[in-house]
Amino acid sequence: MSKPAAKRFPAPPIDKLPDDIRTRLLAVQEKSGFVPNVFLGLAYRPDEFRAFFAYHDALMEKEGGLTKAEREMIVVATSAANDCLYCVVAHGAILRIRARDPLIADQVAMNHRKADITPRQRAMLDFALKVSQASASIGDDDFEALRAHGFSDEDAWDIGAIAALFALSNRMANLTSMRPNDEFFAMGRAPR
Amino acid sequence: MSKPAAKRFPAPPIDKLPDDIRTRLLAVQEKSGFVPNVFLGLAYRPDEFRAFFAYHDALMEKEGGLTKAEREMIVVATSAANDCLYCVVAHGAILRIRARDPLIADQVAMNHRKADITPRQRAMLDFALKVSQASASIGDDDFEALRAHGFSDEDAWDIGAIAALFALSNRMANLTSMRPNDEFFAMGRAPR
Amino acid sequence: MSKPAAKRFPAPPIDKLPDDIRTRLLAVQEKSGFVPNVFLGLAYRPDEFRAFFAYHDALMEKEGGLTKAEREMIVVATSAANDCLYCVVAHGAILRIRARDPLIADQVAMNHRKADITPRQRAMLDFALKVSQASASIGDDDFEALRAHGFSDEDAWDIGAIAALFALSNRMANLTSMRPNDEFFAMGRAPR
Amino acid sequence: MSKPAAKRFPAPPIDKLPDDIRTRLLAVQEKSGFVPNVFLGLAYRPDEFRAFFAYHDALMEKEGGLTKAEREMIVVATSAANDCLYCVVAHGAILRIRARDPLIADQVAMNHRKADITPRQRAMLDFALKVSQASASIGDDDFEALRAHGFSDEDAWDIGAIAALFALSNRMANLTSMRPNDEFFAMGRAPR
Amino acid sequence: MSKPAAKRFPAPPIDKLPDDIRTRLLAVQEKSGFVPNVFLGLAYRPDEFRAFFAYHDALMEKEGGLTKAEREMIVVATSAANDCLYCVVAHGAILRIRARDPLIADQVAMNHRKADITPRQRAMLDFALKVSQASASIGDDDFEALRAHGFSDEDAWDIGAIAALFALSNRMANLTSMRPNDEFFAMGRAPR
Amino acid sequence: MSKPAAKRFPAPPIDKLPDDIRTRLLAVQEKSGFVPNVFLGLAYRPDEFRAFFAYHDALMEKEGGLTKAEREMIVVATSAANDCLYCVVAHGAILRIRARDPLIADQVAMNHRKADITPRQRAMLDFALKVSQASASIGDDDFEALRAHGFSDEDAWDIGAIAALFALSNRMANLTSMRPNDEFFAMGRAPR
Repeated sequence: MSKPAAKRFPAPPIDKLPDDIRTRLLAVQEKSGFVPNVFLGLAYRPDEFRAFFAYHDALMEKEGGLTKAEREMIVVATSAANDCLYCVVAHGAILRIRARDPLIADQVAMNHRKADITPRQRAMLDFALKVSQASASIGDDDFEALRAHGFSDEDAWDIGAIAALFALSNRMANLTSMRPNDEFFAMGRAPR
Repeated sequence: MSKPAAKRFPAPPIDKLPDDIRTRLLAVQEKSGFVPNVFLGLAYRPDEFRAFFAYHDALMEKEGGLTKAEREMIVVATSAANDCLYCVVAHGAILRIRARDPLIADQVAMNHRKADITPRQRAMLDFALKVSQASASIGDDDFEALRAHGFSDEDAWDIGAIAALFALSNRMANLTSMRPNDEFFAMGRAPR
Repeated sequence: MSKPAAKRFPAPPIDKLPDDIRTRLLAVQEKSGFVPNVFLGLAYRPDEFRAFFAYHDALMEKEGGLTKAEREMIVVATSAANDCLYCVVAHGAILRIRARDPLIADQVAMNHRKADITPRQRAMLDFALKVSQASASIGDDDFEALRAHGFSDEDAWDIGAIAALFALSNRMANLTSMRPNDEFFAMGRAPR
Repeated sequence: MSKPAAKRFPAPPIDKLPDDIRTRLLAVQEKSGFVPNVFLGLAYRPDEFRAFFAYHDALMEKEGGLTKAEREMIVVATSAANDCLYCVVAHGAILRIRARDPLIADQVAMNHRKADITPRQRAMLDFALKVSQASASIGDDDFEALRAHGFSDEDAWDIGAIAALFALSNRMANLTSMRPNDEFFAMGRAPR
Repeated sequence: MSKPAAKRFPAPPIDKLPDDIRTRLLAVQEKSGFVPNVFLGLAYRPDEFRAFFAYHDALMEKEGGLTKAEREMIVVATSAANDCLYCVVAHGAILRIRARDPLIADQVAMNHRKADITPRQRAMLDFALKVSQASASIGDDDFEALRAHGFSDEDAWDIGAIAALFALSNRMANLTSMRPNDEFFAMGRAPR
Repeated sequence: MSKPAAKRFPAPPIDKLPDDIRTRLLAVQEKSGFVPNVFLGLAYRPDEFRAFFAYHDALMEKEGGLTKAEREMIVVATSAANDCLYCVVAHGAILRIRARDPLIADQVAMNHRKADITPRQRAMLDFALKVSQASASIGDDDFEALRAHGFSDEDAWDIGAIAALFALSNRMANLTSMRPNDEFFAMGRAPR
C-alpha cells in the first residue's frame, strides 16, 4: 500500500509485531475490514501501544453514564480543537455509526454549539473542551454545571479523562503525522 | 420543512422573493437538486443578497490563475479557521466535486499542512490563512513566498480577496446560525 | 501625486475606469474635495468594486434603527480590532463628522469601554466586536443583551452585517496596503 | 470642570497638593496651556507620582541615541498594543509635535508596519513591541537585529526601558480610567 | 491526614486497593518515604492507574538517548506551560535530584530559555513545548532542528511522547485538583 | 563571581557606584547576606535605579490594608504570568519568609486558584492578574468584586499599582536577562 500509516515513523510489517499486538490488529481488521492506522502507527513502540489501548479500553469500552456515542462526541470535539486530522476523521466515522447519524460528526467537529445535540450533551462538550484547552482553570462551578444536567461525579471523571487521553492521542498523531485511512472519510454517511 | 435554513432569521417563502432572487434560487435548485441554505438565509435582505453573490461570482466564477478547486480549498481552509459550520460543510462538498477527490475537504479543513496537496497549494493556503487571521501583518515577504511558487500578483489578489469575502460570509453564517443542508454532508464522497 | 492609494496594487488612471466607476469617483470628489483611496484601490477590479459598494450602500445608507454615526462607530471599533489603518482613519473622520464630536473616533478605536457613548451604544459595540472577532461563539444570549437595550432583530442583523462587511474591507485594505488620504487625519477635529 | 481627570480616583484639588507636585503641575500648565490629566491622576499618591516622573524624565528627557520623537513613537506603539486610550492620545499629540508630522501618530498606533517611518525605526518598534508584549522571549537575535540597524546596547536599553515604563503607565491609566484631555486630540494635526 | 491527595475525588484507603496497586504504592513509599499523591489520586480508577503507569514506565524508565534528568526537564517545562501545579512541583523535585542541581527545576519551569542548560537541551525543550502547545504545526523542520543537535528519530519520539503523556497527566491533575505532597517542595534543594 | 547579575548588561563594580546606591546595596547585603541581583542589574543606570526603588518602596513598604505577604503574592502571581524567572524566584523567597509558609510561593506562581489562600486573597490575585494581563478590560464590576471581599478603593489602587510596577520590573529583568541569585531558590523552604 503506497500511503503509509504515519508519515514520520514507518509501521513495522504486521508479521514482525509481537503476538498480542498482531492479534489485536487482526481482530480489528476482521471486524472493520481494514486496520485503522492508529494501530499501525503506535505499534512502532509495543509497550506504549499496550499502555495506550489499555487506557483507551478502560475509558471507551467500560459501562457508565455516558453512551458510547457521547464518548465519541468528546473525542471528535476535543480532537478538532487540537487540529488532529487523524482523530477527527477516524472517530468522526465511529461517532456517525454509534449515533446512527450521518451529520453529527461534522457538526461536533466544526462547532458543537450548532450541533443537533441535547443541552445535556452541549454541557458535556463544554466541560470536555475546557479540560482539553484550559484545564488549569477548571473550577467547582464547572462541576456544578455538569450536575445541573444530571451528570454524576463518575461521569465528570469520564468526560475529563477522555478529553485528557485524547490530548495525548492527538499529540502522538500529529507527532507521527498519522494518516486517516481512506475508508473512514465516507463511513457512516448514508442517511438512515 | 422542519429544519430552517438559518435558525435566527427565518427565510422568506420563495414565492415572496423578488423575481431576480427567486430565479437564481430556482436555477441553483435545478442544477443541484436542492436550494443551498445560504441562498435562503441571505434572501432575508435582498439588496445584501445581490451584493454578496455579485462579489462571490466576481471571484469564484471568473477566469484566472487558480483552478476552481483551488478557490474552494481557500474557502474551506479559512472557514474552518473561523469555525463556520455552514461554509466548511457546503464548500467542502463543492471542493470534493471540483477536485474529484473524496478526501481533500476534510484534510484541508482540519490541517492543510497534512493534506494531499502540492507545495504550491500549501503556499496558497498559508497566504490565505494569514489574510484571514492576521491580515495586518501581511508583508512583502508573504507576496514573495507566493511568487516563488509561480503565483502572479493577480493570483495573490484572488487568494486574498477570496479569504476576505469568506471572512464576511463566515460571520453572516454564524450571525444567522445558518444550517448546512443535509445533502452537503455526503456529497462527493464516493471514491473515484 | 507621489503617495499611491494602495502600495501593492496601483490604481488605474481615473480616465481609464469604466464609466459608472469614474462617475462615482467624481461624485465623491465633488462632495469631499478628494477621492478617498478606497475608491481608487478597489477600482483595480471593477466587478469587485461594484459589489463592494453595493453591499456598503445597502448597509450604511439604508434607513433603520441605527443612526449613521452609530454605524460608523461599528466600523471604527471593529477595524481597530483588526489593526486596519485605512478604515480606522477614514471612517474615524466620517464618524467625527456624523457624530459632530471631535473626540469620539479615537475613543472608540482605542477602547470603546472608555468612550463617551451611551450604554446602548456600548452594547452595540460589544456585539459588533464579538461578530468581528469570535463569531462562532455568538449565542442567543448575545441577542438577548441587544434586546435588553431596545435593539430589534433587524438592528442586530445591521450591527452584525456591518461588522462582517468590514471584516472583508479590513482584509482588502491590509492586502493592498491601502493608505488613508492625508485629508482624513484632521477632518472633523475642530471642537463644536 | 465636569470631566474628571480619572474616573475612578478623584484628583485632589491643586491647592492641596504638596509644593513640589503643585509646582510641576503649574509649570506644565504654563508650557502647554493646560494640565495633562496624567499629572492630576497620579497626584492622588504623591510618592508614586514623584517616582513615576523621575523614571519618566530619566528615560524621556535624557541625551542618547534616540530622538525625542522616536521615544514618543515607542510610547504610542506600545500603548496602542495595550489599548491604553490616555497614553495613545496624549503621547500621540506629543509625537506629532516632536516629529513635526500630523500623520505619524495614528499610523504608528494602528499599524507601525504601514507607517511612514525608516527601516531603522521599524526595527526599533519591533523590538519595543516584543518587550512590551512578550518580554520572556526576547533573545540575543533581537539585540542583533537592532545592531544591524546601528543601534548600540545603550539604545537597546532605552528602547526596552521605555516600553517597560509604559507597561506600567498604561496599566495605571487603565486602572484609574484616566481620561485624555480634550486638547490632546487635535493638537499637532495642522499640516506643516 | 487532613490534606487530601486530590480535592475532588477522594483516594480510596490503601488497604482497599487492588493488590498490585497497593504493592506499587508501598514500594514507592518505601523508596521515597511517602506516597506521592498522583498514586493515590489515580488509584480512584484502578484500570486507568495501571495504564497510566505502564505508559509512564515505558517512556520514563526505558533506556535511550535522553538522560533521566532530561526526561524530567521535559515534564517540568511542559507541565508549567499547562499551569499544572502538581506536576511542576513533584517532577521539579525529581528533576533536582536526577540532575543533582538545586536550581534547574525553577529555571526550566519559569523560562527554559534562561535556564542553565546546554543548547542541545534547549532544542529538546523547544520541540517538547511545540508538541505540548501546538502539535498540529509540527513540521519536518522541527525534526531537522533536533537532528542538528544530534538527536535521533528515536529520541524525537521520546521527547514528543513524554510531552504527550504529560498533556494527559496535567489534565488529570487539574481535573482532580491534585495536591503536591508537602515533601516535594523542598526536596533536592540543598546545594551540592 | 562567575555568574553575572544580568547576562546582557554588566553591573558596574560596587565601588564605582554612586554613594547613595552603594549604600543601599551594602545595607541590603548586611540584612540578607548577599546583594540581590536586581540591585546590581538596575545600578547600570543610576537614575532609573533610584526611580525604581522609590516606586517600589512607596508601594511595598508603606502601611495599608494589604499585608506584606499579600503584596508579595501579587508580585509572584503576576511575574509568573509574565514568565519572569528573576521575579518569581526572588519574590517567591520573600513571600515564603513573610508568609512563614514554605509552600505558598510555588502554589501562587503555578496556579493561584489551587493555592492555600483565603477567598479574599484569591479575589485580590484575580484583580491583580487582570490588571497585569488585560488592563484595558478592567471595569467597575472588578472593583465591586474587590469590595465584596472588604477591600477599600485604596487597597484596589495598591493591588493594581503593584501589578503595574512589576509589569515594568518583569520586562526589565527579561530585557537584561537578570539571573536570580542562587541563594533565593532554597530560602524560606524549611517547614515551620
